[in-house]
Amino acid sequence: MATTTDTTATYEAFLDHVKRLHYVGDAGSVLQWDQQVMMPSGGTPARAKQSSALSTLHHELLTDDRLGEWLDELDDADLDPEQAAVVREVRRDHERAVRVPSDLVERISEASSNALPVWEEAKAEDDFAMFADTLEEMVELRREYAAAIDPDRDPYEVLFEEYEPYLGVDTAEEVLTTLRDELVGLIDDIADSDVTLANPFEGTYDDDTQQALVEDALSTLGYDWDHGRLDTAPHPFSTGTQFDARVTTRFKPDDPMDAVGSTIHEFGHATYTLGLPQEDYGTPLGEDRDLSVHESQSRFWENHVGRSRPFWDLFADTANDHLGTDASPRAFYEAANTVHPDNLIRVEADELTYHMHIILRFEIERDLIRGDLAVADVPDVWNEKMAEYLGVRPDTDAAGCLQDIHWTNGAIGYFPTYTLGSVLAAQLDHHVRADLGDVDALVRDGDFAPIHDWLTERVHRHGARYETDDLVREATGESFSADHFLAYADEKYRDLYDC
Amino acid sequence: MATTTDTTATYEAFLDHVKRLHYVGDAGSVLQWDQQVMMPSGGTPARAKQSSALSTLHHELLTDDRLGEWLDELDDADLDPEQAAVVREVRRDHERAVRVPSDLVERISEASSNALPVWEEAKAEDDFAMFADTLEEMVELRREYAAAIDPDRDPYEVLFEEYEPYLGVDTAEEVLTTLRDELVGLIDDIADSDVTLANPFEGTYDDDTQQALVEDALSTLGYDWDHGRLDTAPHPFSTGTQFDARVTTRFKPDDPMDAVGSTIHEFGHATYTLGLPQEDYGTPLGEDRDLSVHESQSRFWENHVGRSRPFWDLFADTANDHLGTDASPRAFYEAANTVHPDNLIRVEADELTYHMHIILRFEIERDLIRGDLAVADVPDVWNEKMAEYLGVRPDTDAAGCLQDIHWTNGAIGYFPTYTLGSVLAAQLDHHVRADLGDVDALVRDGDFAPIHDWLTERVHRHGARYETDDLVREATGESFSADHFLAYADEKYRDLYDC
Repeated sequence: MATTTDTTATYEAFLDHVKRLHYVGDAGSVLQWDQQVMMPSGGTPARAKQSSALSTLHHELLTDDRLGEWLDELDDADLDPEQAAVVREVRRDHERAVRVPSDLVERISEASSNALPVWEEAKAEDDFAMFADTLEEMVELRREYAAAIDPDRDPYEVLFEEYEPYLGVDTAEEVLTTLRDELVGLIDDIADSDVTLANPFEGTYDDDTQQALVEDALSTLGYDWDHGRLDTAPHPFSTGTQFDARVTTRFKPDDPMDAVGSTIHEFGHATYTLGLPQEDYGTPLGEDRDLSVHESQSRFWENHVGRSRPFWDLFADTANDHLGTDASPRAFYEAANTVHPDNLIRVEADELTYHMHIILRFEIERDLIRGDLAVADVPDVWNEKMAEYLGVRPDTDAAGCLQDIHWTNGAIGYFPTYTLGSVLAAQLDHHVRADLGDVDALVRDGDFAPIHDWLTERVHRHGARYETDDLVREATGESFSADHFLAYADEKYRDLYDC
Repeated sequence: MATTTDTTATYEAFLDHVKRLHYVGDAGSVLQWDQQVMMPSGGTPARAKQSSALSTLHHELLTDDRLGEWLDELDDADLDPEQAAVVREVRRDHERAVRVPSDLVERISEASSNALPVWEEAKAEDDFAMFADTLEEMVELRREYAAAIDPDRDPYEVLFEEYEPYLGVDTAEEVLTTLRDELVGLIDDIADSDVTLANPFEGTYDDDTQQALVEDALSTLGYDWDHGRLDTAPHPFSTGTQFDARVTTRFKPDDPMDAVGSTIHEFGHATYTLGLPQEDYGTPLGEDRDLSVHESQSRFWENHVGRSRPFWDLFADTANDHLGTDASPRAFYEAANTVHPDNLIRVEADELTYHMHIILRFEIERDLIRGDLAVADVPDVWNEKMAEYLGVRPDTDAAGCLQDIHWTNGAIGYFPTYTLGSVLAAQLDHHVRADLGDVDALVRDGDFAPIHDWLTERVHRHGARYETDDLVREATGESFSADHFLAYADEKYRDLYDC
């Protein structure tokens, strides 16, 4: 064991390096935000060079031999629990990065760039065959990537851990399978229900109207404009730091509820980021606990607040003022929760059927990576699963297996975190209510501070100190579980659809 | 001499490194643009870390031992003229950077940060004494900086070359002294003139009105919106690359001509950046030839186009439409060229008296650095020179020697490039007219392409290939000279003021 003085010096040098790595990564995020929100189209060639230079520097800092040496020294050192957590997180990232040959990183990056126009054309032409070789190449590259990290483990498990390092693919599979089996019956009953939910919207709503509406929604929920901003982007996202967490949204002329939901979703991501401890900026203690937990925060605010009846009791008047409508809180509530089992497109799915879209993708990508499914069979399998899970079969590949960009980017293993986040959101919601009492009254009164405080205290302030399940236990006193989500969904939707 | 194959390999490795250095610098510029234009106020602490990390990486890449070795190898190599120019420029930057100890770089950076609030308070309190020690420290640090780069040369010369590497401080001094001696008489005559120029503006003009006006001005002049954008910032600036060169402006409610002039000024900077060769992005061949040449492009468009009578023949109707005025082209022309000898503030000065403000600052900062002037004497010297050059004496330090931020930042040697740029703009204007014939007719017709083409062909496309005076010769066939500026100023203002 190193002496305390040595350890302190080593840990400080190590931490300086870690912070620098993090700052360079965050600088890259600023460039990406700018590219998607502000940059004129002609700027692409220069931006590609700038982003690539930062990304290479980040990789060099992460795989730096000195970092490996510091990690080895700190392995045997007497660290406090927070320091040990920092070392654990950095070691994980360092080890994954050094195991992947840089030529493979470059081949994946190049293949992604080349794949994008192929996917775009195949989707436009509605022809999966045009994309099949490209997908095959990406699957092979990702299998190679997984094998580089750990040749002895299930490659899908290794890829999944890129996005959700600690919950385990077995948990993911169990949760997703449970949801599939439980939700099919509920969705069937809704499809058979005679109930038609309200839709108070007619005609179109211009961008300025929707912008003012969602700004008010953000202010109502307590978004801190001194530490964030709202802009539009083709694909809404949130990015930033605990000092500056920005939200983007989009406006569909005939569907203002889409902008409201999407904005509140990204607000949820931003509140997580803003709740991370400022004093730990640049270290894992000031970083988010990966994608499932991040998505739990966005889904908490989107679904358990933004789609709740008390929220519309609070916000209906404001919404009517902006939209020129005269809808009741109940009508907004119904509009926000209408289920469309016949919808084919994931990003347009409701809160409930969304998960069937995810489960289908999870099963297909898992089987592709494990070699249990041939690329050529993807369209048929996709369409069969859609028929089985949602009772609707896509007529075209464009509305089927070509709809998402994720596999084109090589982001295989990402989809499950959407559903895991929703499941965790329901679990947190259950415990927020158990701890705070009449949460509906707080929402109805616009008194969101106790909810923000609960989430910050239980989740945000820990950063990445705990592994995911430990964080869930820290926050809720129980292990990660799908039970709360199933109970929530069953109660809410059987009531809405009288089924 | 190295073999050709060796040289090629060395040059390629060298150039990859140079490009990387440049991309990291440009990434830093994106962060700075964002900070000044988009970032919420709370983002400052994180942005400071990110910018500092990029700046340190940039410094490490610039002072890298390998870069020194490549430069040594390429010294003896058989390079073509463009390669030799790249090596010359990079060597200059590398050598200056390695000579300055990193602790001095840090001390200057820290002193600048600490100086800012002191200067702000001294200015607010109108008390130079509060700022004197801070200025003294900055002067000492800059003397130390100059001595580190070259202990055997005039320290002011060394500092001046930070901003204008090749024209030489002797040329600057000669030009500034000539302007001082020649313009004093003209300004006196204007002050004594009975002529009052038109001011067609009454009341206030809101931001949206002025925004629409300056957007139309940019479109009229041919700004390429696919490669740029316009935003507002407290201190207007332009930044970017040949792929994405952005402009910022500001709006004063009672003075729409300020926004027009300021926007066209920044447009001039952006046209230079956009005219740099795209294929050389990331190397000195794709970089600007420093501040005097950059300022010549902004001043060309601001003064020789935007303040010209034919421009207002073209643009008066549009301006009247936006502003709700009914002014003649002549009235706009007069308003754009009104001389205010009694104005005390540099950034509010007209085209003519502006240079007296610069000359005064040049003389004071030169004497401070050379040890010929004590910091304590700055306010008196400032006020005496104002009286001598412009016939007006500031009542306060806030409106005198505390008005500018430059010395607080340690930017000593920067001011002269403003005047050198204006002088070069007039020289270029003379030769544009000699080559293109009836330039007034082109401007009146809104046919700016031939002017853009001339400037791109003669100036922009060369990047930093030539040293400044060689570039001026390449562009105009003659050496850098103040004659054209003096003739232009005399003719224009004696005509306007009938004196």
